[in-house]
Amino acid sequence: MATVPVALTPGDPAGIGPEITARFLLDLPPGGIRPVVFGDRRVMARAAAIFGAELPWVPVREAAEARRLGPSEVGLFEVPWEAPELPEWGGMAAASGAYAYRVLEGVAPFLADGALPGVVTGPISKEAIQLTRPEFIGHTEFFAQVGKSDRFGMLLVVHPLRAIHVTAHVPFARVPECLTRARIEETIDLAALSLRRLGEPAGAIAVCGLNPHAGEGGRFGMEERELILPAVEAARARGLKVVGPLPPDTVFYRALNGEFQVIVCMYHDQGHIPLKMYGFDRGVNVTVGLPFVRTSVDHGTAFELAGTGSASIGSLKAAWELAGQLVAQNLSR
Amino acid sequence: MATVPVALTPGDPAGIGPEITARFLLDLPPGGIRPVVFGDRRVMARAAAIFGAELPWVPVREAAEARRLGPSEVGLFEVPWEAPELPEWGGMAAASGAYAYRVLEGVAPFLADGALPGVVTGPISKEAIQLTRPEFIGHTEFFAQVGKSDRFGMLLVVHPLRAIHVTAHVPFARVPECLTRARIEETIDLAALSLRRLGEPAGAIAVCGLNPHAGEGGRFGMEERELILPAVEAARARGLKVVGPLPPDTVFYRALNGEFQVIVCMYHDQGHIPLKMYGFDRGVNVTVGLPFVRTSVDHGTAFELAGTGSASIGSLKAAWELAGQLVAQNLSR
Repeated sequence: MATVPVALTPGDPAGIGPEITARFLLDLPPGGIRPVVFGDRRVMARAAAIFGAELPWVPVREAAEARRLGPSEVGLFEVPWEAPELPEWGGMAAASGAYAYRVLEGVAPFLADGALPGVVTGPISKEAIQLTRPEFIGHTEFFAQVGKSDRFGMLLVVHPLRAIHVTAHVPFARVPECLTRARIEETIDLAALSLRRLGEPAGAIAVCGLNPHAGEGGRFGMEERELILPAVEAARARGLKVVGPLPPDTVFYRALNGEFQVIVCMYHDQGHIPLKMYGFDRGVNVTVGLPFVRTSVDHGTAFELAGTGSASIGSLKAAWELAGQLVAQNLSR
Repeated sequence: MATVPVALTPGDPAGIGPEITARFLLDLPPGGIRPVVFGDRRVMARAAAIFGAELPWVPVREAAEARRLGPSEVGLFEVPWEAPELPEWGGMAAASGAYAYRVLEGVAPFLADGALPGVVTGPISKEAIQLTRPEFIGHTEFFAQVGKSDRFGMLLVVHPLRAIHVTAHVPFARVPECLTRARIEETIDLAALSLRRLGEPAGAIAVCGLNPHAGEGGRFGMEERELILPAVEAARARGLKVVGPLPPDTVFYRALNGEFQVIVCMYHDQGHIPLKMYGFDRGVNVTVGLPFVRTSVDHGTAFELAGTGSASIGSLKAAWELAGQLVAQNLSR
């Protein structure tokens, strides 16, 4: 049986990405999907050396080579760091950002033509990339473009909790104006798509209210009546198994008890606060709505920890495992 | 040694209050603070009968009698339900609301003159009370008036997490306009007062940001720079051990790990979502800033469960235990 290879991008070479990737690969048991790291041999060797170890690589230049990886092997698609000196740990720098972007460009064609079924991404510094690529928004938008998708979203997963957000990185005060019935419906659709991709098409979708107690019948706000309830009803009319708007402070407890398989959140912290509290170092981001699998660590470059070997690999491990589950689901369809 | 008696009000007579009170009293071990229930003998007998039990009461008409309660005894200060028929389980009704209010009036003088050191309250229906007392706002404001306090707040406790809110029952969209530096400072002061009352004057206070990532240096909102940071700095200048504004989605995890002993939240769900997820049926509300102790269950009347005996007593039990801790702290000052 041929191996199923999945791309792995360590992220910013001066952040914790290379060392968590190295530590993760050193611990990786045989079998399952096999990693093809897109990166630089010296950057990765320096990261492995933190743990007094070396990483044995199998060079990969094309997809056929990736599929021939043995059950204990790890591939390396070389994206060379071109300067003679490696970047210093912990510094946000244009050269590191430019390099991290070249890695993404390296993996893009493999995903676009289906040669690789998915990618797991380590932490980049958007700011570092923007120093040479001001048009860069983020990983998610980059991969949406690679996958030619215009309806995509980010699912945050801390097993067994899953949250998808109608709005994310906008100021609190601007959330109400960003909420529209159309956006809420779209996000419910992406929640349903997530469940299908996870192999749980019959899962239940919970939709949070915006206001305390979900507005308590209009006493604490009208968004539930005017926007959220109509969106929920429209989704239900299309056959989706969805309930809401529910009081936000009881939804997550109910989900923990198995009542809901995915939660539609109105704003960033509505989902991030409970999920990060529940499993701080095992959160995974999944981009939903792409023709390939993409999961990611849910933390940043943690420049202040880079080079120390102390960063947790929990999130990367969880991202890898979830990618394996999603790839297997896709293959079985 | 004389007993330390504490008032216990079962709340709305048609809700779950009487039955959780009965169940709680039937299970109550000897010793500790002793309850003086303010209520009606028949209402409580009906509640105990759900569990096939009877409650042996010691009549209490004045504080001296309360202090003579034995270590296994429970007092009853009779506030009679005056109609011949008891209220039906589960109905929101003017008569029930009026009765629940008479119970509060019954306990008020004991608290106002220090004859009883505190009260633990069961769930009322504000709506039911407002049918005859439209000026009634809630338990908290009622007891603030009894205690002649104009600086008070509500602490939500799910051990070991404690949250206090700058704003609470206001629509999401109105939160930004309700946040002022003065209100944030006042809430930080109440957080510090809470720690002193809990016997932890050296505890650390965390202050949440409002925006995603606490604004990320102004990219996602300016409230952190303009309001929250100045309030934190002013509190620190007054000698308080306080940090912030912190990214809201990591504060609760850090508090769970012992880094902070109380968290100042900017809006209702910022604290309620994580605390209710963490311990759904053992949340306690504490009114801070009163000259007496007041703790409360953090749930409602749950009319739909009333009379079934299935409601959890977890929150009442936790409220009673916390009242005992607070009363002991007050006595030792």
